[in-house]
Amino acid sequence: MQKHQIKDVITRFPFLADISSEEWKEEGISIVSLPVNSVVYEGEFLKSTALILEGSVRIYKLSDSGREVTLFRIGNGECSPLMAAGILGRSEFEAWACFEKPTTILIVPIQTSQEWMDKYKGFRQFILRSFAFHLNNLSNLIETMNFKSIRTRISKYLIEKTSHDNDSLAITHDILAIELGTVREVISRTLKSMEKEGLLRLERGQITHIQHRQLLVLLNKDCREHTVTG
Amino acid sequence: MQKHQIKDVITRFPFLADISSEEWKEEGISIVSLPVNSVVYEGEFLKSTALILEGSVRIYKLSDSGREVTLFRIGNGECSPLMAAGILGRSEFEAWACFEKPTTILIVPIQTSQEWMDKYKGFRQFILRSFAFHLNNLSNLIETMNFKSIRTRISKYLIEKTSHDNDSLAITHDILAIELGTVREVISRTLKSMEKEGLLRLERGQITHIQHRQLLVLLNKDCREHTVTG
Repeated sequence: MQKHQIKDVITRFPFLADISSEEWKEEGISIVSLPVNSVVYEGEFLKSTALILEGSVRIYKLSDSGREVTLFRIGNGECSPLMAAGILGRSEFEAWACFEKPTTILIVPIQTSQEWMDKYKGFRQFILRSFAFHLNNLSNLIETMNFKSIRTRISKYLIEKTSHDNDSLAITHDILAIELGTVREVISRTLKSMEKEGLLRLERGQITHIQHRQLLVLLNKDCREHTVTG
Repeated sequence: MQKHQIKDVITRFPFLADISSEEWKEEGISIVSLPVNSVVYEGEFLKSTALILEGSVRIYKLSDSGREVTLFRIGNGECSPLMAAGILGRSEFEAWACFEKPTTILIVPIQTSQEWMDKYKGFRQFILRSFAFHLNNLSNLIETMNFKSIRTRISKYLIEKTSHDNDSLAITHDILAIELGTVREVISRTLKSMEKEGLLRLERGQITHIQHRQLLVLLNKDCREHTVTG
């Protein structure tokens, strides 16, 4: 690691300022760059802790039959807790990582990570917070998958990805199914019925004329109904 | 905490032998007993770290309309990572805990937990392992909910809960739906079709004549088919 690299790293992860210049020289600490759309089996990362300096990584599960479900994304200044599971020395976790943007990662070998965890409170807190945050995220994902209808989940997704000024979204039914943890057939059927109701228009590879305001009304209505029936 | 209590705690959690007798005297450290079927909103626990000495706790999410989904269970010698999230000083986690057996818990206030985390490697490793373990569990639950058919999930559940010698299980369709993260109607429909095929018999409040061996064959077949189509 060069001095200017260390400086860049500390700008992104201020708690790493605690690490001494001697410790930065330890073998295996490095910065790697991964091109967009590269895919790795996460097992490959479990020998190191990976801190994202810049970019975006989607962590997903892949079924034997090739279906996917997105677990979560990690971006600038974050750390995958599943990658970090490696710092415990063993992990049976199996997932895939897809780099959605060109991504630069600080790699810290497990042995070094463990030493830093023991020695530096800032590093320890960062890893623990990351674990707690993603546990919360996964719990909420399970809740959403169970309790919310596909129509509600599609509405929520479209609202998040569009605005009053930009009412189109380039996305295939396949990708939307992966994002929402269901199958393409369910997505297509639901989108078609939403198109009939004038909530959106389906075009090749994209959804256009998304009625942001109407979807928001539907979503609020759905939440209220859930509360009323409770 | 009495001396004999501390001794009991260390028998269950050997890494707590590191804690000095002075530290055991800190305010708020206590052992609490909760009767079977008591239910608490997990937020109540976030002021402390809770280590299970004896018993079983089911952690679940509850929807506005009263539907439930089980996230995981914690038992003897374990610690809920969601409870442990409190040791980070803040958590937005919301879940419920139901005590399935009479349960005895060691309560350690957050402030003390944080000090122990900083000071004792054994305690720190325990909390981290617990986080990693449950992250893995939740990821696998999401995978199962997405990729496995209800029939496969019911078969797997019944195989786990029965044996060749004991082919009955007292469980309602409602409870099975909560366990598998779906609705009662889907469970009832699937069970009825399985009954028609002679895989089990449905009686009031229980499933009998569970064909353990046949379910196992089905399950293996399902896995192979998933692989072949992949």
